[in-house]
Amino acid sequence: MNKLIYFFEEDNNSGKELLGGKGANLAEMTKLGLPVPSGFTITTESCIRFLNDETFFEKELKEHIIASINKLEQQTNKSFTEENHLLLVSVRSGAASSMPGMMDTILNLGLNDKRVRSFAKLTNVAFAYDCYSRLLQMFGDVVYSINKENFNRVRHDLEKQLNKKQQDFSEEQQQQLIEAFKSLFITHDVRFPQDPIEQLFEATKAVFKSWNNQRAKVYREIHHIPHHLGTAVNIQSMVFGNSGNNSGTGVVFTRNPSTGENKLFGEFLINAQGEDVVAGIRTPEPIETLQNLLPTAYKEFVHYAEQLEKHYKDMQDIEFTIENEKLFILQTRNGKRTAKAALQIALDLVAEQRLTKKEAVLRISPEAIDQLIHPIFDEKELTNAKLLATGLPASPGAATGELVFTAEKAKEYHALGKKVILVRQETSPEDIEGMVVSQAIVTSRGGMTSHAAVVARGMGTCCVTGCESLHIQEESKTMMCGDIRLAEGDLVSVDGSSGCLYLGDIPTIVVENNQNLQQLLAWADEYASLKVRANAETVSDLQTAIDFGASGIGLARTEHMFFGEKRVLEMRRVILAQDNQEFEAALTKLLEFQQEDFYQMFKAVHDKPMIIRLLDPPMHEFLPHTMNEINTLAKQLKRRPSEVQNQIEKLQETNPMLGHRGCRLGITEPKIYQMQVRAIFNSAIKLMKEGFLVRPEVMIPLVSEENELRNIKEFLTETVLETFKEQQVEPFPYEIGTMIELPRACLIADRLAMNSDFFSFGTNDLTQMTFGFSRDDIGKFINSYKEKEIMVQDPFQTLDQTGVGELIKLAVAKARQTKEGMMIGICGEVGGDPYSIPFFQKIGIDYISCSPYRIPAARLAVAQANLIN
Amino acid sequence: MNKLIYFFEEDNNSGKELLGGKGANLAEMTKLGLPVPSGFTITTESCIRFLNDETFFEKELKEHIIASINKLEQQTNKSFTEENHLLLVSVRSGAASSMPGMMDTILNLGLNDKRVRSFAKLTNVAFAYDCYSRLLQMFGDVVYSINKENFNRVRHDLEKQLNKKQQDFSEEQQQQLIEAFKSLFITHDVRFPQDPIEQLFEATKAVFKSWNNQRAKVYREIHHIPHHLGTAVNIQSMVFGNSGNNSGTGVVFTRNPSTGENKLFGEFLINAQGEDVVAGIRTPEPIETLQNLLPTAYKEFVHYAEQLEKHYKDMQDIEFTIENEKLFILQTRNGKRTAKAALQIALDLVAEQRLTKKEAVLRISPEAIDQLIHPIFDEKELTNAKLLATGLPASPGAATGELVFTAEKAKEYHALGKKVILVRQETSPEDIEGMVVSQAIVTSRGGMTSHAAVVARGMGTCCVTGCESLHIQEESKTMMCGDIRLAEGDLVSVDGSSGCLYLGDIPTIVVENNQNLQQLLAWADEYASLKVRANAETVSDLQTAIDFGASGIGLARTEHMFFGEKRVLEMRRVILAQDNQEFEAALTKLLEFQQEDFYQMFKAVHDKPMIIRLLDPPMHEFLPHTMNEINTLAKQLKRRPSEVQNQIEKLQETNPMLGHRGCRLGITEPKIYQMQVRAIFNSAIKLMKEGFLVRPEVMIPLVSEENELRNIKEFLTETVLETFKEQQVEPFPYEIGTMIELPRACLIADRLAMNSDFFSFGTNDLTQMTFGFSRDDIGKFINSYKEKEIMVQDPFQTLDQTGVGELIKLAVAKARQTKEGMMIGICGEVGGDPYSIPFFQKIGIDYISCSPYRIPAARLAVAQANLIN
Repeated sequence: MNKLIYFFEEDNNSGKELLGGKGANLAEMTKLGLPVPSGFTITTESCIRFLNDETFFEKELKEHIIASINKLEQQTNKSFTEENHLLLVSVRSGAASSMPGMMDTILNLGLNDKRVRSFAKLTNVAFAYDCYSRLLQMFGDVVYSINKENFNRVRHDLEKQLNKKQQDFSEEQQQQLIEAFKSLFITHDVRFPQDPIEQLFEATKAVFKSWNNQRAKVYREIHHIPHHLGTAVNIQSMVFGNSGNNSGTGVVFTRNPSTGENKLFGEFLINAQGEDVVAGIRTPEPIETLQNLLPTAYKEFVHYAEQLEKHYKDMQDIEFTIENEKLFILQTRNGKRTAKAALQIALDLVAEQRLTKKEAVLRISPEAIDQLIHPIFDEKELTNAKLLATGLPASPGAATGELVFTAEKAKEYHALGKKVILVRQETSPEDIEGMVVSQAIVTSRGGMTSHAAVVARGMGTCCVTGCESLHIQEESKTMMCGDIRLAEGDLVSVDGSSGCLYLGDIPTIVVENNQNLQQLLAWADEYASLKVRANAETVSDLQTAIDFGASGIGLARTEHMFFGEKRVLEMRRVILAQDNQEFEAALTKLLEFQQEDFYQMFKAVHDKPMIIRLLDPPMHEFLPHTMNEINTLAKQLKRRPSEVQNQIEKLQETNPMLGHRGCRLGITEPKIYQMQVRAIFNSAIKLMKEGFLVRPEVMIPLVSEENELRNIKEFLTETVLETFKEQQVEPFPYEIGTMIELPRACLIADRLAMNSDFFSFGTNDLTQMTFGFSRDDIGKFINSYKEKEIMVQDPFQTLDQTGVGELIKLAVAKARQTKEGMMIGICGEVGGDPYSIPFFQKIGIDYISCSPYRIPAARLAVAQANLIN
Repeated sequence: MNKLIYFFEEDNNSGKELLGGKGANLAEMTKLGLPVPSGFTITTESCIRFLNDETFFEKELKEHIIASINKLEQQTNKSFTEENHLLLVSVRSGAASSMPGMMDTILNLGLNDKRVRSFAKLTNVAFAYDCYSRLLQMFGDVVYSINKENFNRVRHDLEKQLNKKQQDFSEEQQQQLIEAFKSLFITHDVRFPQDPIEQLFEATKAVFKSWNNQRAKVYREIHHIPHHLGTAVNIQSMVFGNSGNNSGTGVVFTRNPSTGENKLFGEFLINAQGEDVVAGIRTPEPIETLQNLLPTAYKEFVHYAEQLEKHYKDMQDIEFTIENEKLFILQTRNGKRTAKAALQIALDLVAEQRLTKKEAVLRISPEAIDQLIHPIFDEKELTNAKLLATGLPASPGAATGELVFTAEKAKEYHALGKKVILVRQETSPEDIEGMVVSQAIVTSRGGMTSHAAVVARGMGTCCVTGCESLHIQEESKTMMCGDIRLAEGDLVSVDGSSGCLYLGDIPTIVVENNQNLQQLLAWADEYASLKVRANAETVSDLQTAIDFGASGIGLARTEHMFFGEKRVLEMRRVILAQDNQEFEAALTKLLEFQQEDFYQMFKAVHDKPMIIRLLDPPMHEFLPHTMNEINTLAKQLKRRPSEVQNQIEKLQETNPMLGHRGCRLGITEPKIYQMQVRAIFNSAIKLMKEGFLVRPEVMIPLVSEENELRNIKEFLTETVLETFKEQQVEPFPYEIGTMIELPRACLIADRLAMNSDFFSFGTNDLTQMTFGFSRDDIGKFINSYKEKEIMVQDPFQTLDQTGVGELIKLAVAKARQTKEGMMIGICGEVGGDPYSIPFFQKIGIDYISCSPYRIPAARLAVAQANLIN
């Protein structure tokens, strides 16, 4: 059994898992000789034992806490009982992975009605009662779930009644406020404990429990942090940034978290506690100003900041407090940063020879890469756009959406498929679910390190903070921007890189690949083993994919090509043909269209391989449904509408997903597949004659039985040979493979491999069939599933390794039994998911294929998967 | 390498696999000293080698055939070349499993233009040319696919022209007929080979190839005979039943194949070849008559028949020919029989101590049992029914359907979901696919051993043959029954047990379980290890199931109960409720209904276990769809129709099979499941108080994730405990289990087992998901799949062992890892399929559950599965 509690100065190598990130860093800094206020850490293991069985606290943990407090009293020469040397402590959560603002913190613990008077004598009335009232408020909130707003209202009422601010209250008036706060406890059937040690016990238990609060759970789900780790609790003697004007508190990054520039970046507030900076209630000042105000402390800080960055080999996010000109470092951690900054910092650190290329590749998260290729507003359009307000550029990107003022409304609109911009005075951890679903977040208060800014950067969501000219009226769901009144649902556009908020919809374009990104991805490619292909079929998407570094096309769908006005008419003729002549005539027209399509597509991908999937959707998807459209079609076909309608009705299906589609069409209507293959090879041959090297890869979808594959492969091969003959060219190599997207295909993969040159897993359909979920219909129950924690990850975004992954693994093993070196890829949505890629690497997949914009992140993810493998 | 050819008298134990059933029996009979015409058998292995590579014939087989013919010439003292001792042979197929009429036969082989004259001199002109013209006709049909009808037409034309029957032709006129037949070959670009050995080569090759003709393949599919076995070819010197009036040919069963009575049963024709009896062209006479006509031959035959039955320990189906009073046995095999006869014979043989009980259980096929519980017409209704015609009661049962006159039409109507009665002058092997889909088969010609009768008995299809008063006009698709004209599509009813054909629809009832069946199934139960449960929920079905010997109920669905007029209204109220009050009020009504349902159900199954499945279908299945119905509903609910319509539309799903159903309803609407469980336990407690022993088994459907199961089990368990408390009874044992019907459920079976008291595989849905097939939609492509032999077995009827079976096997193994003794059953359609049951036995399933009428067959099948295991 490990120890339950460690003092910061204890020499141990337990690290983050046991002490949490904050605790481990406090220990580390103490060892480095930095001015860290004394304290100790209750381990994550204690948290887990408590959460499993709350009696653990009484039976074991309590006596260790009492012993530790006694030791802390000796170390600090302060006391929980003596009146002259008051020990006050902070109680902070700290998990192994940083979860900013998700769990609870209580400051100033140790004050009570009596001790606050001594404290007021030692310092001053305003400061002492400020601390005590903060304690009551935080304690009420954290331990007894009394909403903080209740306290604010009570304070506000008294301030109004006395017609002055709290800081100007007399001691008696301060006590009046405290009594009012204590009454709030009573109305909630609880009382504020006067005994400091009892305060500590309750606070510790509450922080343990905050591990399992809803917003912390959601945060962990989003960031793929396991639920079983627990949080450590750090008990630290208090220092006071709110001791007057030669005190203060701040948060500083050792480099710029937005740009990566190698220069201190941060903010501080004079005469404030740490919460004031983070909560965004007052707008802080830039760190440089400190140089003038408190030059000694500033110099000292700069020194420690350098020391810490060197030590941790990464940009640090440091919290400090100055108490009467004396500097204390309260916390350090690797700083969150924008993608752009992350990239700049990683490359700089390599240039400074502090990191290797491999370490740099491992340090950037694939999600960060996504931010770099986020769209920005089209400059040309911006000149005409109506600027509503300007704030701080807290997280880059550009987004348009409908205005909402609450997290609930954001979720509600999102569920209806709307894009939303969440505008708040300030955000709080309670808003997390609403923030996740928003296109952008805007706050009227708070700085670059406010809650909104930190969370938004973490998610790569566009964010503007401190937009002070906005006047938000939450009750009436409106806001004033100067003289413009905007209401819920109005369209606004947000530029997170410039900090601007615009009226209406503004078109976006994509940033050019920057050189830093190119550099990093070039390194990544060196370390990767999985290849990255793209899912694309339009010439512009194919171009984007190649530009983003796709090594080929993993899935070019052919059905989209039939939807143009002229084409869909011919397709409809094919489907509804009454005789062979009509059928063949329409098919010939489609052949011409397809030939031109494939010619352009092959040209766009140059010499890179491209897998073309034959027609997949059921026929009825190409047919009209409204009576109006049917009438038009009937006229075009020179048929009676009722007749056409009848034919259309006959083609309807109860469960189209499980219906007459994919290779089933190839079996019942071989001529359509033959036409497609003829078009593919005619184009390939044409290009070959023009000097290009084309090696077509044809993919047969929705195979469930080896006979399907055998039958279709047979007639397609005949068609290919005929085409070579007709075009009078020597046969050249080509491949015919199959999509594995049904559970049965996985189970018979060894047999399918015999008639297949390659496999490509269609994880979307495979996930649908394995779960028995229709993506079109899960909306009806998936919210219940998330709320009740029945389904934490969306299996359409991140591979369900337990079920679907097991089938894929089985299929790969079976296929390799038949054909050791067969090329096997993933072309479903999860192919581009960084959390799924290591699994694909492990089971021996050759390539993943994703949408063009996901390629840069995927290139990094495959390199990382190989490096950590 | 085995020998390619065996003479009948060669002592070998190669058996049926190598020699085919016919060849092995000919060898066996020769060894027993029976009068079998000399000959030899070309092995099935030779057939397979030939079918794989036709050059095998020239390279190897040919010389062996020549050597064998030389040996046969010596044995018979006849010759293929000499004119005075003409050797004529028959060439017959003979596979390991009997496939009556499916493959080809050629008789009289060895005749040619010249040899027929010598033959005419040795016998007589009419006989010789009859033989020769038959040879030409059969050879043309079998070797060159020249339709037999062409020959008949030529013969008919000449008979008309000469105004006499062929048997009365002069030799010159006979030769004229032969020349006309030979011209038919020429018009088909082939010629009839004059060299007997060449005839033999071509005939042998043609018989080999007939293994793969369409009707043989279909037959094998129906009877689950593997396609890779091949057929042997038997070359036997001819004897002639058509040598005049002291010659003849017949087919005799050693016991009655309809009733099992221990008495010779058969037919013969004087002056005829075997084909005449089987083809049903002339109506033959009962075997007893032979006693008077040819008493010596008859006595001899009776002797051999007894010998053969003793030898084979089973009822024999014997073909014989008498040539100028000399008896030859041409073939014997275990006779096909009705279920009733099979049962009687098996029980008699046990009584005669020729079979053990085990052997008797193994001898009856489960399909035969199905026939015994086939419906018969209600006697009361029969008195008023209009009798159209009477024929031979060829295969028992009773059926009503629409009249069709061709196999094609039968298939076409069947595909439209219609029940059809196929009426033909006579059936031929080409009709097999139409016969399979018919409710009953009626022929106007042919006897009890005609093609129609044999095939129908084999399939358990009701059949009447030799209904000579029917005048069928195939062209006009009508038939005259006396003065009544019936057209295609008219409703008729057929009684296969009485041989009667009636006009219109007659209600049927089910035969009482007869004592023989009870006896056999009692023996079966002794040998079984798998239990047989029933899928049933109405009180009458539950009663039938118990009467048929179900050991419990494997699947009682609860949704059917909501469809009564009053109930569906309450269900709709629940679904469309606008407030909680309305919801609860309707739910309470449903609770009352369900309580009464479950009370009656528990009572019907007595002390046997019953698994009740909670609500499974999506909510929209309970809602109306037409505007009329919606208006009525709106009135009932006192709501606006447009509002109700809106709500209904919102509930629609794109793929309901993959939608909001099963346990997903349990998650989103826990109160409905709670209501159901409350109803189950209230009823159980009520019965318990009345002195019954009830142990409810509750099943949760469509689970794909362990959290679903955990969540639902948790709140259901709470409800159960509440119910015990409310009813003030001591808790008694009950089980909560889950249906495994999604691929993912199979993959995580180990985890699901932790929260499940039992598993029941829902193979219908599991098959749908594994293949990605919707049963509602496969109609659009399944016929193509069958035609192109892509899907041979219907995976919804017989388990797909390769895919679905693999998943089930995996799940069983995983579940047993978690809970060694957990009860696991099968409740999908394939649970009652005799071809799937051995697989379930092998992988360790505890019980199968099927519809009540399939229970007797299943009881036998599970015993057999255990005995052969």
